[in-house]
Amino acid sequence: MHATVIENLIEKFEQLPGIGRKSAERIAFHILEHMSKEDAVSMSNIITEAKEKITLCPVCQNLTDTSPCKICSSPKRDNSVICVVESPEDVSAIEATNEFNGLYHVLHGSLSPMDGITPDDIKINELLLRLSDSTVKEVIMATNPTVNGTATAVYISKLLAPFDVKVTRIAHGIPIGSDLEYADKITLIKALEGRQTM
Amino acid sequence: MHATVIENLIEKFEQLPGIGRKSAERIAFHILEHMSKEDAVSMSNIITEAKEKITLCPVCQNLTDTSPCKICSSPKRDNSVICVVESPEDVSAIEATNEFNGLYHVLHGSLSPMDGITPDDIKINELLLRLSDSTVKEVIMATNPTVNGTATAVYISKLLAPFDVKVTRIAHGIPIGSDLEYADKITLIKALEGRQTM
Repeated sequence: MHATVIENLIEKFEQLPGIGRKSAERIAFHILEHMSKEDAVSMSNIITEAKEKITLCPVCQNLTDTSPCKICSSPKRDNSVICVVESPEDVSAIEATNEFNGLYHVLHGSLSPMDGITPDDIKINELLLRLSDSTVKEVIMATNPTVNGTATAVYISKLLAPFDVKVTRIAHGIPIGSDLEYADKITLIKALEGRQTM
Repeated sequence: MHATVIENLIEKFEQLPGIGRKSAERIAFHILEHMSKEDAVSMSNIITEAKEKITLCPVCQNLTDTSPCKICSSPKRDNSVICVVESPEDVSAIEATNEFNGLYHVLHGSLSPMDGITPDDIKINELLLRLSDSTVKEVIMATNPTVNGTATAVYISKLLAPFDVKVTRIAHGIPIGSDLEYADKITLIKALEGRQTM
């Protein structure tokens, strides 16, 4: 027996990823009870503003409010290396390491014949366009180690064969800090296969 | 190295209860990547609309978009019983049981001398006003079974002594479906004290 407006607010938050009914209620009541009117208006504005201002970078296809994006336009980045990822979240995760200084390419998904996602549905052609001159020397396939992610990496690496670029795949193995005995079989096999001289 | 607008969006969601940095990022990217522009605008509008339209019911102090609220104005509710709770969420929880047909009174907090919350800071006077005629026969204290909630219940029950109303407290005991051996001591004591003839 919530007021209709409250019910609408709860339902909006319930649609967000990771938010169930109970969390959505908690958030809605927080906004109504504890958030100042200014804060609520500012939250509302930032949602529409973000949606209006954020577009895909014409070069790397990452989400951006400049064109090209900050990473693509930075003179400090090494433009001979492109790291191919599935989503903008993956770019954030790699950037957070502060260890990669090259450029990115965001596919916005992975090939999935079961779900009808074909090469034309993700940003593969945009990647090929970036290889038209000989600036890029290496393409790192950093798609997820899932069936679809791996298939996508293999598919793209074949497409890249005619180009004069080195195509690499990020390493798979035992995550740091975890316990060998709890690793799954496939990870263990990959870790053995990928062993390196100490 | 998020675009400023994306960072602002993430920070807004991070301020909500139960949402950490990672969830806020996930929600922000969901809005930017997967939500339609119409849905985002609608979400933005509902936040400001809710904040504008929702006020406190002049009778029970619950959040409402009508005045008085739907419960207070319903002819089907028993207006001789008032259930006193700390927050609008508590009203939702009790309404969800479909077992209570009386009215509510929302205190918007509990007495907490440590945090400087005195009787004037919560809606106690508004409760007393509702007892001015002799319609109300019973007031059920359903504040939380915490130190502050219990103190609030005791404080209010003393204030109500001069009025011709029965003051009751919701039962405390072993929750249904749980295991006796894992109940804490105080709950177990309350369960024994509150035993009833079978």
